[in-house]
Amino acid sequence: MIDKHHIDALTELLGDKGVITRQEDMEAYETGARYDRGRAGAVLRPATTAEVSAAVGYCARNRLALIPQAGNTGLVSGSTPDETGSDVILSLDRLTRQFEIDMDNRSVHLDAGFRLSDLNRKLEEHDLFFPIDLGADPRIGGMIATNTGGSRFLKYGDVRRNTLGLKVVLADEAGTVLDLDCSLRKNNTGVDWKQIFIGTSGAFGIVTECVLNLERLPKQTATAFLVPSGGAHVLPLLKAMEERLGAYLSAFEGMSRNAIAAAFAHVPSLKNPFQGGNIPDYVILAEISRTWTPREGEQSLDAVLESVLAEIWGMDDAPLADGFIGPPHETWALRHALSEGVKHFGKLFAFDLSFRRGDIMAFCDHMKTEMSAQFPGVTVCDFGHIGDGGVHFNLVVEKDSPLLDEPSFEQRLREWVFAVAVEQYHGSFSAEHAIGRRNQAYYDFYTPEKLKEMAAGLKPITSPGRLGSVRFG
Amino acid sequence: MIDKHHIDALTELLGDKGVITRQEDMEAYETGARYDRGRAGAVLRPATTAEVSAAVGYCARNRLALIPQAGNTGLVSGSTPDETGSDVILSLDRLTRQFEIDMDNRSVHLDAGFRLSDLNRKLEEHDLFFPIDLGADPRIGGMIATNTGGSRFLKYGDVRRNTLGLKVVLADEAGTVLDLDCSLRKNNTGVDWKQIFIGTSGAFGIVTECVLNLERLPKQTATAFLVPSGGAHVLPLLKAMEERLGAYLSAFEGMSRNAIAAAFAHVPSLKNPFQGGNIPDYVILAEISRTWTPREGEQSLDAVLESVLAEIWGMDDAPLADGFIGPPHETWALRHALSEGVKHFGKLFAFDLSFRRGDIMAFCDHMKTEMSAQFPGVTVCDFGHIGDGGVHFNLVVEKDSPLLDEPSFEQRLREWVFAVAVEQYHGSFSAEHAIGRRNQAYYDFYTPEKLKEMAAGLKPITSPGRLGSVRFG
Repeated sequence: MIDKHHIDALTELLGDKGVITRQEDMEAYETGARYDRGRAGAVLRPATTAEVSAAVGYCARNRLALIPQAGNTGLVSGSTPDETGSDVILSLDRLTRQFEIDMDNRSVHLDAGFRLSDLNRKLEEHDLFFPIDLGADPRIGGMIATNTGGSRFLKYGDVRRNTLGLKVVLADEAGTVLDLDCSLRKNNTGVDWKQIFIGTSGAFGIVTECVLNLERLPKQTATAFLVPSGGAHVLPLLKAMEERLGAYLSAFEGMSRNAIAAAFAHVPSLKNPFQGGNIPDYVILAEISRTWTPREGEQSLDAVLESVLAEIWGMDDAPLADGFIGPPHETWALRHALSEGVKHFGKLFAFDLSFRRGDIMAFCDHMKTEMSAQFPGVTVCDFGHIGDGGVHFNLVVEKDSPLLDEPSFEQRLREWVFAVAVEQYHGSFSAEHAIGRRNQAYYDFYTPEKLKEMAAGLKPITSPGRLGSVRFG
Repeated sequence: MIDKHHIDALTELLGDKGVITRQEDMEAYETGARYDRGRAGAVLRPATTAEVSAAVGYCARNRLALIPQAGNTGLVSGSTPDETGSDVILSLDRLTRQFEIDMDNRSVHLDAGFRLSDLNRKLEEHDLFFPIDLGADPRIGGMIATNTGGSRFLKYGDVRRNTLGLKVVLADEAGTVLDLDCSLRKNNTGVDWKQIFIGTSGAFGIVTECVLNLERLPKQTATAFLVPSGGAHVLPLLKAMEERLGAYLSAFEGMSRNAIAAAFAHVPSLKNPFQGGNIPDYVILAEISRTWTPREGEQSLDAVLESVLAEIWGMDDAPLADGFIGPPHETWALRHALSEGVKHFGKLFAFDLSFRRGDIMAFCDHMKTEMSAQFPGVTVCDFGHIGDGGVHFNLVVEKDSPLLDEPSFEQRLREWVFAVAVEQYHGSFSAEHAIGRRNQAYYDFYTPEKLKEMAAGLKPITSPGRLGSVRFG
């Protein structure tokens, strides 16, 4: 708990609703949606950019450590406080006033506290959406702080690509507000400062408002499950699909047998669509979509997908062993059940990796081969976004396994996975969850000294105050 | 000319081919492709990143001012030396060794000295291209330093969006090489430093190598000239096309009557496709394309475009007054002749502006109305990329006009245009040519103090040496 005179001063600035200090009310903010838990000295809930500025300036002048928090749905403890009880959480959850759609510009200017689902619900009536497709339901500010990608990156890109402008509060004694809200798609008049605040976990400033690019909602969608002829055929299959479907292709998601089996086991409502119920080693969910309503004389997307699959079957050394169209709500139901299924399968160690596309399957095969020697009792339940190189590399240990009693087990496991991913396959140890307490040590270990120095140099020219859970530099 | 002992030392590092000091050989580097002219102390032509590092380190240790230069095709004097003869040009034109395509990853790792046309020629046999479509033929390093967009931004985005990795040499005493070459599409493990070097005219470091995202070459294309019912109908027309064509739409280029007339006057081979030869007030070149070869049972793109135009004609308050399909080589020939035509029409004052999409036509109309009062004798020959908000706002004065004798004319004109564009319409005064000597004053004037301070703070943590023609901060 922080000093009462600070609480009084902050209450003066933010009002009664803007400051929480009762333990039972703080708990929801101290607890991550996945598995984090810390203790906060207070929770601040400013409702406007001006209030964020006032609160941040006060904390900077009084050397209070601030942890910005959006939906707290991340994987790496980026927005939960530490155990000391001296961190002040600055929650964005009341920053939900500003909301203005510009139909001509296909953009929206909104406060950073909106949840993704709320944003998309408001956009739906305009036939628009923010095209970052996630399993979780974070708040927009957190999506910017982690630069999330999701399942349709292949077509629409990540948050960075879809961010046109930001308003940012810096942790300096004035609580300086940077207006980087240009709403323009083309603007090259100096350093594009907004890029510094995207994907850096709020360490250099707190995003309070943003202008986002919007896309038109798809009006037609077709999906299929594809079974590649083998791991080495996944990339040829992707390339064959890209060649024949171009910008129609909106997802190409890989799912391992273990991940699918876990989903079937724990979500009984799922239908098993595979022949005889036998889950193949690896399955791709491919989606194609278009934004217009069907036109006279136009082939349906199901027919397009059928004919493309037939063509690929006819190729020499065909990369496709099996493939069948399924209704999107059923195919995606399986895909979206993977996370939940894997979580129930045992104690989960989740890795959010990425690779050059050609290395994904090689990495996964390498790890599966080595796992039984290095870590017997650990099951690989991987799935991922093959189109953009992202892999949710999930490792599961049965809940009564003796491995879990080994004090250094988790650290040994993480170090080995990251060593192979980063050093051997030149991949990334954080594809779309950025850096938080949980992977700080790996940032420190894998980032070249010069880049750490540069990040340390960026701190005093942006937010000299104590901000965020990460130490860059 | 710089001291002979420096020339000797640099020749030691770069070899005879790597250093030019004869005046007649330097001229090509002292002269911009458009209209710049300066004097260089020497021209350095390193052939590898290691040579760039050696040369840059030497210059930093000896306080020599370096101007990085790629194709020198820019609009704002970003890469030409000043008049003093003390700037050393560092040309990328021999940096053309490294070239490696990764077909699985759809990316290429190449030296920054390649020209765009050379890159695309090498990619063509693989059915790939780098999707930045420009009238000029710059070198890749210059495209990164200006973050060019071009005519197909609407579909493929700008250089920033298509850059996966960079290798950068910093102007410090060691000539530090930053390896930001991750080749990954998803990587959020700290500050994304490459963003700082994109669009900042080489002021913070010299890009020597890069990894670029590639796209599949279109195999089918259809284009049409569209005549909107009026200026206020341009955006409704764009939205109607986006709704019905989605990701098919690959260009939506606006052309004013004056710009078209200038093209017809100066490129006699152009066919005038308009009824009775009468050029409408404003014309859109719309392009749709797809990456696959025609499939059985599939409508041709011409038929798709025809039926979409018919639908739009049928709308209430139809935004389309006229529209007809034309073969892409003819429609694009007119579009590509606009720059050349406008240049021959008189003395050209070119502005590279951008706006929120809904403001483009309002700005252009506003200026046309005001021009005769403010600057009689100045003709507006605008054209632009309506889909992304970019406007080539060209002002032409007849060559014998007395306006050209007024010493302050150009400055008065520029200040007025920028004031209306930036202050009244919240647009950008440099959409895709970044900052150079020519618009330094407007950077100084329009950039908030805090952002200038931050840019000044970025200099010592990246390139403390004298680098580039721009002073940020």
